[in-house]
Amino acid sequence: MNKMDTCLRRYDNNGLLLIRSNAKKQGYKFTNFMNKQLRIIPLGGLGEIGKNMTVLEYGRNQIIIDCGVMFPENDMYGIDLVLPNFDYVIENQDTLRGIVLTHGHMDHIGGLPYLLKRVKTTIYGTPLTLGMAERQLEEANVRQNAKLKTVKDKGSIQLGPIKIHFFPVAHSIPGSVGLVIDTPAGIVVHTGDYKLDETPAGGRTTDLKRLKHLTQKGVLALLADSTNADRPGRTPTEQVVADTLDELFAEADGRIIIATFSSVLARLQAIMDLAVKHGRKVALTGRSLQENVALARELGYMKVADKVLVDIKSRIPDDKLIILSTGSQGEPRSALNRMAKGEHRQINIHEGDTIIVSGGTIPGNEEDVGRMLNRLFERGANVVYGRLATVHVSGHGSREEMRIMLETVKPRYFIPVHGESRHQHLHARLAAETGFVADETFILQNGAVWASDGEKAQQTASVPAEDVYVDGRLVGEIGEAVMKDRQRLSQDGFIVVYVPVNGRSKLVGEPQIISRGFVHMQESSDLIDLARKELKRQLQRKGRKNDPKETVRHTLQNFFYRETQSRPVILSNIVRV
Amino acid sequence: MNKMDTCLRRYDNNGLLLIRSNAKKQGYKFTNFMNKQLRIIPLGGLGEIGKNMTVLEYGRNQIIIDCGVMFPENDMYGIDLVLPNFDYVIENQDTLRGIVLTHGHMDHIGGLPYLLKRVKTTIYGTPLTLGMAERQLEEANVRQNAKLKTVKDKGSIQLGPIKIHFFPVAHSIPGSVGLVIDTPAGIVVHTGDYKLDETPAGGRTTDLKRLKHLTQKGVLALLADSTNADRPGRTPTEQVVADTLDELFAEADGRIIIATFSSVLARLQAIMDLAVKHGRKVALTGRSLQENVALARELGYMKVADKVLVDIKSRIPDDKLIILSTGSQGEPRSALNRMAKGEHRQINIHEGDTIIVSGGTIPGNEEDVGRMLNRLFERGANVVYGRLATVHVSGHGSREEMRIMLETVKPRYFIPVHGESRHQHLHARLAAETGFVADETFILQNGAVWASDGEKAQQTASVPAEDVYVDGRLVGEIGEAVMKDRQRLSQDGFIVVYVPVNGRSKLVGEPQIISRGFVHMQESSDLIDLARKELKRQLQRKGRKNDPKETVRHTLQNFFYRETQSRPVILSNIVRV
Repeated sequence: MNKMDTCLRRYDNNGLLLIRSNAKKQGYKFTNFMNKQLRIIPLGGLGEIGKNMTVLEYGRNQIIIDCGVMFPENDMYGIDLVLPNFDYVIENQDTLRGIVLTHGHMDHIGGLPYLLKRVKTTIYGTPLTLGMAERQLEEANVRQNAKLKTVKDKGSIQLGPIKIHFFPVAHSIPGSVGLVIDTPAGIVVHTGDYKLDETPAGGRTTDLKRLKHLTQKGVLALLADSTNADRPGRTPTEQVVADTLDELFAEADGRIIIATFSSVLARLQAIMDLAVKHGRKVALTGRSLQENVALARELGYMKVADKVLVDIKSRIPDDKLIILSTGSQGEPRSALNRMAKGEHRQINIHEGDTIIVSGGTIPGNEEDVGRMLNRLFERGANVVYGRLATVHVSGHGSREEMRIMLETVKPRYFIPVHGESRHQHLHARLAAETGFVADETFILQNGAVWASDGEKAQQTASVPAEDVYVDGRLVGEIGEAVMKDRQRLSQDGFIVVYVPVNGRSKLVGEPQIISRGFVHMQESSDLIDLARKELKRQLQRKGRKNDPKETVRHTLQNFFYRETQSRPVILSNIVRV
Repeated sequence: MNKMDTCLRRYDNNGLLLIRSNAKKQGYKFTNFMNKQLRIIPLGGLGEIGKNMTVLEYGRNQIIIDCGVMFPENDMYGIDLVLPNFDYVIENQDTLRGIVLTHGHMDHIGGLPYLLKRVKTTIYGTPLTLGMAERQLEEANVRQNAKLKTVKDKGSIQLGPIKIHFFPVAHSIPGSVGLVIDTPAGIVVHTGDYKLDETPAGGRTTDLKRLKHLTQKGVLALLADSTNADRPGRTPTEQVVADTLDELFAEADGRIIIATFSSVLARLQAIMDLAVKHGRKVALTGRSLQENVALARELGYMKVADKVLVDIKSRIPDDKLIILSTGSQGEPRSALNRMAKGEHRQINIHEGDTIIVSGGTIPGNEEDVGRMLNRLFERGANVVYGRLATVHVSGHGSREEMRIMLETVKPRYFIPVHGESRHQHLHARLAAETGFVADETFILQNGAVWASDGEKAQQTASVPAEDVYVDGRLVGEIGEAVMKDRQRLSQDGFIVVYVPVNGRSKLVGEPQIISRGFVHMQESSDLIDLARKELKRQLQRKGRKNDPKETVRHTLQNFFYRETQSRPVILSNIVRV
């Protein structure tokens, strides 16, 4: 409510967008009426990794750039996915002109099935990006809500008064683009995810020439990828990885197993080429990998002869086989982790295997990855991972590349996007080094509204943008309160107490205690027994307040904290018998 | 039980140590009767980070080397600490000659309070190490169970037939030593934690000369630190950190806040010296930091003039102040994290502050550290962390240093210790490169018994060595079953159902459903209501099996999985009224 009050107060100053509607459950109604104003609203992707989504509006024309999901952090108990908050978009769906996708990674397209459940619109992207988006929509049975329109990576589209030109960028998936968005208020450049790799695996470099050409008349605002703003210099070229793999392939005299992200399709092509060079066949394990390779081949993004690919069950000699697998993050159910635990149906790791884990560890996954690596070593494999050789490089540019992008685009205003807030701050400082002064750079929180008339720019109001949690079929129903309960349950478990009482709330019979996740009921039966006796004594004590529920809570909380220093959740069930 | 059976089967072959005793709850009795046999048993520190502990026995003479704790991994729900299993030591305490400590870090001394609750013995170490151990023992009220005997870092002690010579090693805490253990069966070298730093912060280099001298007559076995076996080359010298800090101090024109491990006392000395050089005072925040500095000064390990240290509440101009703080791991209650959240009583982060996070991130802490960094940036501080400058280097040697150690000691047998199992495997491979053949290197699981008569060596039986969890006052009572419950509760919460029935188990009145950590009871009241109705219908259905408990479980499990795809823990409370 506080945030809303601020919005209302700011309404007069900025002539903007938020009007309270008592009729709505959320209490808000959003209306745009500044017709000649350009607004940029990040709804996700600022402050966290992933769920990248940006709203761009000019007058009553709304465009969405990307719609990603974030994978939960370790302390988001029981959460499957985190979505951007779609409320603002839904409220203003009558102005929505379409969704433009920069590339096919989940942190840019994974939110589409949830958004397309609630709005119908057209989605624009390169063929591979749209192919991957289409699969997401089909799986969620919402394909019919979207028109899909492919655009070439040097193509253009017109959405109302806004023209969007694509330009190719080098990233770890083919078909990645940046956007030059030509609005009546000026040009906005959105880099997408990019690196300035001159020898990328896909062969497609970032087209700075086209970008320069498209931005000749000057750029109002640049939204640029900040992911690696804490890495000095340039990100090594993907070619380094190919060279390392080439060496490792030459040394290996047994089976080669490579785990990588199923979406790093550019690298998968390089691996296929190396397989041919070293006279090996390639088998794929992991559903997402199989689907992505099939799609990329179908659309011509990946070139592999049929005879190179073999079924995982084929009998190929170890020294003629490469197995491509998912699981570079140690995900519990991934193919590589099942191999590590000896639970994979087809593949039994043994001495002589060379296992290459070709993926950077996403923060939060270190323990899972470490455990998996340990197990693979224990099975006798020769395991190669990031610390031992350059088997992975980032798909995002580092500080030098960011500097070149700033100097190529020379925007009037700079809005660092993607990455966590420390990366955006570091990106902003880099901009300061290249000459930007304080009010030319905007670090926007999710939901913050940046507005410009084409000359001046300012951060104005905010729209709702808190995380939306997906837990199974529940979308947005699990909030902080439930999460706190789960956190407490995960630490100390719970106790349920059954207390039979008569009409005057006096104990009749024995109280019963059941616990889960607190102590082991059998092994700690003495403790539970002592607690029961103490509770009975307290419930029968003369002169106690006549509220058995309160007595239960108070008695057991004190008893268990004294005995165990734990604070299990205590639920009492006072039953009149 | 399986493990035990293996032990018993192996008993005849190896003439070793484990006899089942039916009288004991654990079912085992351990007896050593091979008087002329040397045995080495790692009880912790193999397969995981931390809780380093090794038992060395010759005949009826048992020596313990280090006794550490491990901090729990993210999926060890509610666990405070993890201890080595002390059962074997306790069983054989009549043969215990003492505990020898290599240095004062928690992963080498933190288990002492728990072990000294159960045995009385003498602890040997250098003055700082013993000072830190003593504080642990005092806090746990078990100081009286230990005799503490200080040994110089080039000193020697005699424990029964075993003579132990200390040699100084460079590590991130002063007073660190390695051990040359002279037994009647031969010499065993234990490196402790070491690096071959030629310009370490404490000034004390690893004394390879003394090590060489002490091992002239040949070494039977080397136990060497494997922590950095996946890092090629040499670990950079601590002097690099001092140089970086020197530069950062020169650039800073406001307050400097440095977060580091409170136990990296060697680096703390360097910081104090730099403070003097740059004309700044130093204030300490964080209890462990204050205690460690006080102890190190008292024992002469740290030299700081009184006037350099000031109270955190003193009014010192920002550009004359350095604040030393705990919290390099983003620990929720640490001083730096409280500053990041704006909850520190004395320190309010503001623009102009330079914050240096001078500690490597321990795997599993990445998300906490990342969040803390974000918050510090958001408060306007200039934050410097590992990716941006060399403000931390490891205290452990890398592969080149390991190679030098192997070549200096030239042991007959090699047992890689410390680090996780992948590090031990990589260390073993390094040994293979220097000429060790297969049966000269032993990668021992915790509890594995390595035995030698001074000539031959083999891995024989095993002793119990599973993790012992500490949860509040409960030591060893929380096992896998409780942990699994907690894991499930953390994902989906629980539901308690109260079902009033009559004597024939027929429902009388309304069933009640309470949930915690599943869905929000108020916000999802529709769902709960539907579940209640469905349950009532099922309980009243004619012809159903007459077990209301089973009906509750079955009905609600199906209902909630269908509606939410979650599987909360379901407890039913069938009450006869």
